[in-house]
Order: sequence, then structure tokens, then C-alpha cells
Amino acid sequence: MDEFSFIRSIAPKVHRQSGLIKGIGDDTAVFRQPYQDIVTAVDTFVEGVHFTSETMDPYHVGYRVLAANISDIAAMGGTPAFYMIAIVIPEGWTEEGLASIYKGMDDLASLYHIDLIGGDTVSGNELSISVTIIGYVEQNKVRYRSHAREKDIVFATGTLGDSSAGLYLLTNEDSRLSEEARNYLINRHRMPSPRVAFAKALHAAERVALNDISDGIANEAAEIAEASNISIHLYDEQIPVHQSLKRFNREQQRKWKLFGGEDFELIGTVPEQDWPIVAAASGKAKIPVTKIGFVTNPASEAGSVVLHEGNRQTILDKAGYTHLK
Amino acid sequence: MDEFSFIRSIAPKVHRQSGLIKGIGDDTAVFRQPYQDIVTAVDTFVEGVHFTSETMDPYHVGYRVLAANISDIAAMGGTPAFYMIAIVIPEGWTEEGLASIYKGMDDLASLYHIDLIGGDTVSGNELSISVTIIGYVEQNKVRYRSHAREKDIVFATGTLGDSSAGLYLLTNEDSRLSEEARNYLINRHRMPSPRVAFAKALHAAERVALNDISDGIANEAAEIAEASNISIHLYDEQIPVHQSLKRFNREQQRKWKLFGGEDFELIGTVPEQDWPIVAAASGKAKIPVTKIGFVTNPASEAGSVVLHEGNRQTILDKAGYTHLK
Repeated sequence: MDEFSFIRSIAPKVHRQSGLIKGIGDDTAVFRQPYQDIVTAVDTFVEGVHFTSETMDPYHVGYRVLAANISDIAAMGGTPAFYMIAIVIPEGWTEEGLASIYKGMDDLASLYHIDLIGGDTVSGNELSISVTIIGYVEQNKVRYRSHAREKDIVFATGTLGDSSAGLYLLTNEDSRLSEEARNYLINRHRMPSPRVAFAKALHAAERVALNDISDGIANEAAEIAEASNISIHLYDEQIPVHQSLKRFNREQQRKWKLFGGEDFELIGTVPEQDWPIVAAASGKAKIPVTKIGFVTNPASEAGSVVLHEGNRQTILDKAGYTHLK
Repeated sequence: MDEFSFIRSIAPKVHRQSGLIKGIGDDTAVFRQPYQDIVTAVDTFVEGVHFTSETMDPYHVGYRVLAANISDIAAMGGTPAFYMIAIVIPEGWTEEGLASIYKGMDDLASLYHIDLIGGDTVSGNELSISVTIIGYVEQNKVRYRSHAREKDIVFATGTLGDSSAGLYLLTNEDSRLSEEARNYLINRHRMPSPRVAFAKALHAAERVALNDISDGIANEAAEIAEASNISIHLYDEQIPVHQSLKRFNREQQRKWKLFGGEDFELIGTVPEQDWPIVAAASGKAKIPVTKIGFVTNPASEAGSVVLHEGNRQTILDKAGYTHLK
């Protein structure tokens, strides 16, 4: 199959977004959005670096790379609308395998009502996928990392560490868990659910700092702390973990919930009086939300994250990973 | 240097676009454009497939990958505004080499007054660069390939085949050309100039079909013919070539001007009465434009490209390349 037939085979037959004027099929896509601001980001995933065929089927690869990008839009309080896929395909990939990657993306895109509007497919030696995501955000309601202020409540959605535990289960023998718990954690690793509905439901709040948890909460909290020039205090025992995680030893639990990435939950801060808005958003989006800490404006060490474990306080190292070393 | 220091080093210090609200530094970029439609595309370039260090310095790689994308915006009649770069970096690339790639992009971006607003840098085994380009286009003035109609004039900007000749000179011994001609052609290969100003200057024309010549005019004409369901007739002797190209033999000239890609000139069609608008755009943008043919609406063979060479008419094969085979 040549490039053009392949593109035809993946080009959507219908548009989900009313603002889309022209999708795949000309030099560029064209869309219209006069009332809201545009948010956009790009992420690249390389086989052997960001995923491996040992733990992910092609379907999951597609699902998860798009989920990671949708999560970036959620972290800005936006609504995803469009995506484009640039893919480098090594020899040996079958049409069926490629189609599975796109199927994974399209199934998620369908859930979030977004359109594939462009892309590029080229040959190379290693599989890599670049996703460009484009969304809308209400003017002056962008949820920047720099929006945290002293005395804010810090909250997190969902449960943390699930994805890391799922990856562990995919790469290690472990008989402690029930089939159900095992499936839950693996599914959280392979098919995460970006928290768009929750972030949008925060609409009534005037000021929210928001970040998605792609690199571990320690790292994401530090990004907010640095951008806002404040300190974030987290209560270790309040960081939400799923009951399935409690079957692992304390060291694993701690590592995964604090430093494990790719749960694609959200961490945020709001003024104390806006907590009812957060709680209501949780109910509306049917996503649990937990108070996990508070914001201070210290004389020194602004930009830091402080972990409270019982009576002990420690400055959390980011321990997030950076890909370019 | 880690990823964050590198991103800081390439993050623009000032914004060129007034619509940009937030560039690099949060989960996504944010911009506002209430009055025009948005055009966007993505292209990926892989070392060894789309470029090699034998014919391109890192600076040229950066310059040309961005030029190719800006050209897509020109082909829609739009104005480029923003770009994002996702780059896969193999071991062995120095900070200096990477900085040169970004310098090449930034020098071109400066000429076109566009902002780098996001990206991703990841490790991998082969260098690949995905460019996402975003621009604006006046509502209802998008220049689709499907806009060609019977009796339209077909035109091309600049000269064709230069880039292929430049690549030839970079990979073959050839003593026929003067140093000046040689430099001209090599420069056209390494540092093409997308025809944004010309395309925008067509503003007064109600209907224009437009395509940029990235894969050879035969292929680009066929794309217009197919999208518009008409036939495009081209006069071989009217296809514009630079005087430097005339030092090569007839076979080389023919191959390069018809099938050689990456000149990033434009091919278009307009109603005959709008030719003065095209001529005026040429003057305004200081880019030569040449009438090279006409459009018919044949009973059969719609979608074809017919080449007139003297009294001989042949149906042109696309002979464009497709990367996925």
C-alpha cells in the first residue's frame, strides 16, 4: 500500500467538530474558532524509549500517545478538538499493525469527539510518532502553572501510581494480585483517561493552577511551585492510591505514587473558598478528587515541594525523567 | 545539557506575533485569532531519507524543514504565524549541532515573522524532525486545490528544477558551471524561499487554485487536476527554468523541471480575467510568475496532466515519490 492509499484509509469519513472547514486532503487543514483561544502542543514517542512491543500492542501505543496529548489540553482547562499524526515507519511494519495504531487513536478520539485533520507518514529505521494536539479554551480561563498562590488548596484527581504498577505487572512475575486488580492496573497503563471533563467543570473558578501528571506528582508539583514561585506542601498519606496498589510493598507504593508517571491525572491548586467548585466538578465529571496539601509563600526555598510524612517534612526531589541527557 | 536547559536555550525571548498569549513554558501554547481561520499542517523529515549530512549542514536542515512547512501555508494563501518542533535526537549529536538546526529554523522564522511556540525533544536512534506549522487565512479566501475550473490560466512562480540541480551539484563532480551559478543552485536546494508574499498578494482574486511544488510540478498539477476534476495542460517550453539550468543536458533539465521537487514555488490556476491580479502580485512580491498552460474540462481523462512539447501531447505521469512503499 502506498502513502496515499494509506492516508485515504485512515482519513476520517465524517467530521466531529463543527469548526472544522477542511480536514485531510489539501496542503493544510483549515478550521474556525472566533470565540475561544487556541491551545496547542506536540509530543513525540519513540519505540524502545517511550514504549515497547513487549508491554503494548500497536492499538495501545496509538491510544496512549493520543491520551498523553489530550491530557496536555486538559491541563490548560481546554477542550481538545483536533490532532495530527506524523509517523516514522520502519520496514517490517505491516499495514495491519499500522492500522491498529490508528484504530487505538481513533477509538480515543471518538470518546473525546476530536478529529484527525492531518499528518505525515515517512519511512525510517525506528518507529516514532509525533502527535500535534489542538484545542479551544475559554478566554481568560487558561489554567497556567503560574496561578498558584499562598494558602491555596492542592488537589489531585483519581489515583496515582497505577500506570507504573501496571507496567511493573507487564514486565515482572507477580502473583499477589487478583485478575481484576491486575487488569485494572494494566489498563490504566495502556489506556489512560485524560481528565478533560473534570478540568472543564472547574469553569466557575476564577483562578486555578493545573498540571497533568505525566512525569510523577513530585515533578508536576515542582513545575507549579517554580512557575508560581511558591512552595507546595503534600501530605503523603493523603495522596490518593487505588486499593490494588496496596498489595505492593511500601517502597514500591511510595516510588510509584510520588514519581511514577503517566497516570494522566491532574494536580491543581485553588483558593480555599473555591473548594466547593472543585468538589462539584468531581461529582459532575465522576472523577474522585482529593485534597492533598496546601501552598505557602516561604521567605526562602520558593519553588520547592515539601512532603509531610507523619511529623517528618522532606524536600521532594523532582526525580522526574528528562529524555535528553 | 538536559532537556530543560536545552529548551530554555532555544525558547524565544520575544514574541513576533501579537496573537500569541503563551509560548513555550506550560502544557500547551495559547494564541488568539478571532478574525481569520486557522490553517495547520505537519511534516516529518528523517536523516538518510529526506536529507543527509553530505549535502546539508545542520543549519540548512533546520532552514529547509521549516521552509517546507511555511510553503504549505503559502499554498493555502495563508500567513504563517507559529511553529512547533518535535525532534528525535540520536546519540552523538552535540549541543552545537542541535543549536545549528534551531538557528537555521530561527533565521527563517525571523524572515517570516513567526514564533516557535512548542516542541518536544526526545532520544532515539535516528535524527528525525517533525514540524507543525500554524497560520492564519482570510475567511473564504483559502486557496484549495479543488478550485480550478475550465479555461483557467495555469501559472507558476519562480523557476523550477533548481533544487534538484543543486542537489546534483552537491553529489556529483561537474565543472560546466560558474561558481556563481553553482552557488545559486545549491542555495536554492538548501535555503528555499516559500512564496508567502506572492500568495497573499493574490488577495483580490475571488477564486484561485494553489499548490506548492514540493514533489515536482507534474505531481502538483495532477493533485489540482484530481481535486478539481479537470485536466491541466502545460506547455513544456513555457515552464520557467533559471539560466543556470540551461548548462545541463536536455534530459537532466526535463527531469528536474517536471519531476524535481523542493523548489517550493507555487503552481496555480485563475480565471483568465484575473491574470492582471496575478501579474500585479508578481510585481508586489518581486517574484516572477509565468503563464504555463490552461485548464480543460474533458469528457474523459479528467484529473490528468497533458504536456505539450511542440506539436506532441503526452499525458504526464505523476512520478512524484511516496515515502511509504
